Amino acid sequence: MNLILLLEEDFTSANRVRLSGRRREHVIEVHRAKVDDELTVGRLNGPMGKGRITRLDSECLEMEVLLDAPPPSKLPLTLILALPRPKVLNRVIASATSLGVSSIHLVNAWRVEKAYWNSPRLQPENLWTQRVLGLEQAKDTVLPDLHLHRLLRPFAEDTLPALIQDTLPLIAHPGAPSACPRAIERPVTLAVGPEGGFIEGEVSMFERTGFQPVSMGERILRVETAVAALIARLF
Amino acid sequence: MNLILLLEEDFTSANRVRLSGRRREHVIEVHRAKVDDELTVGRLNGPMGKGRITRLDSECLEMEVLLDAPPPSKLPLTLILALPRPKVLNRVIASATSLGVSSIHLVNAWRVEKAYWNSPRLQPENLWTQRVLGLEQAKDTVLPDLHLHRLLRPFAEDTLPALIQDTLPLIAHPGAPSACPRAIERPVTLAVGPEGGFIEGEVSMFERTGFQPVSMGERILRVETAVAALIARLF
Repeated sequence: MNLILLLEEDFTSANRVRLSGRRREHVIEVHRAKVDDELTVGRLNGPMGKGRITRLDSECLEMEVLLDAPPPSKLPLTLILALPRPKVLNRVIASATSLGVSSIHLVNAWRVEKAYWNSPRLQPENLWTQRVLGLEQAKDTVLPDLHLHRLLRPFAEDTLPALIQDTLPLIAHPGAPSACPRAIERPVTLAVGPEGGFIEGEVSMFERTGFQPVSMGERILRVETAVAALIARLF
Repeated sequence: MNLILLLEEDFTSANRVRLSGRRREHVIEVHRAKVDDELTVGRLNGPMGKGRITRLDSECLEMEVLLDAPPPSKLPLTLILALPRPKVLNRVIASATSLGVSSIHLVNAWRVEKAYWNSPRLQPENLWTQRVLGLEQAKDTVLPDLHLHRLLRPFAEDTLPALIQDTLPLIAHPGAPSACPRAIERPVTLAVGPEGGFIEGEVSMFERTGFQPVSMGERILRVETAVAALIARLF
């Protein structure tokens, strides 16, 4: 937790907050902070700054905060991600958020096991928490939006055309003849398949919508590694 | 497992192998393969090719193999990594291996908790297994070498100078004024700190040896995300 994210309900006045639970425990156990110490804080979807601890005990953490800095810019990137298996989902969401992705769409694909869609990790609370963990890691405050699409074809036909407007639409596809471009100066929509990849029919569907298949070389990477590597290369 | 890695002892003749255990189970449960199916295989530190299943049952998996292709090139990259916490260690080793790192040095640092050095995950068997998982993921056969250095200063003074010879030595340091370079055409030695980063004295020690601090921007990434992002940007 490199930044403590403050929510609307934490504020007891314009510049005072009171926290309990996970954040209070983290400040005690990991930061080993004490009264008068300063911590990096930020208001959810708002400015960042410093919080000076005015009370820290078994009940709550109180701080006087000064929020005077803008959060870091987001990457102009919409990530379309075939729903990863539950074990990996949390890490990918947090990691993509920490990298600064603006928007995440979790979609179905042939090689996504049906059972993944019933995972409790798809509950809104968990998807919110994983994004918050990513923001706290990266020192950011702006929550990327996140959408679930249980049917790929309607998503591709009805939602994609508007989504990719004014962006460069790329689909990561190991073995594609074009190399993933570097240091793009414009917005990108990037589709990443499940373990095992999108099937050919899915790749064709994305291509018909305007997506270009690109590859990172002959190595096949796990989804989490691929997402970080692709984003680092694109921006 | 996108490639089944074959060991010396798997070979019953020049072109026949017999496997049991994890690999046999994976081929049954995940690949759902049957006799006469072909699988991608490779000989540890040797060539890759195809294996045709000649027997697959509760006891063993037998294949007739044709190994006629070279493994993918390694990246000319030596990765120096402050020992991550055990929970993260396995994933980072497998991920770095899948990305094609040639050589990994796990080192101590001020912010590495002493207890991490007693983790059973540092046993040679586990460190070997994690690299094998990375190779199987990436379709590679060449095991990166891996070294442990429990003392940072002797490593920096005695080992580093020879290690970085004829390479570009970089240390990832959030907030460094220089941006991490892109698409480097020469060998690189890259040092990545622990969660919380190297302390200033450690960065200075690396700098005295010739390392240049570089940053990926103002966002602070988890070690696993940072390693993938740095490597993708460098090569």
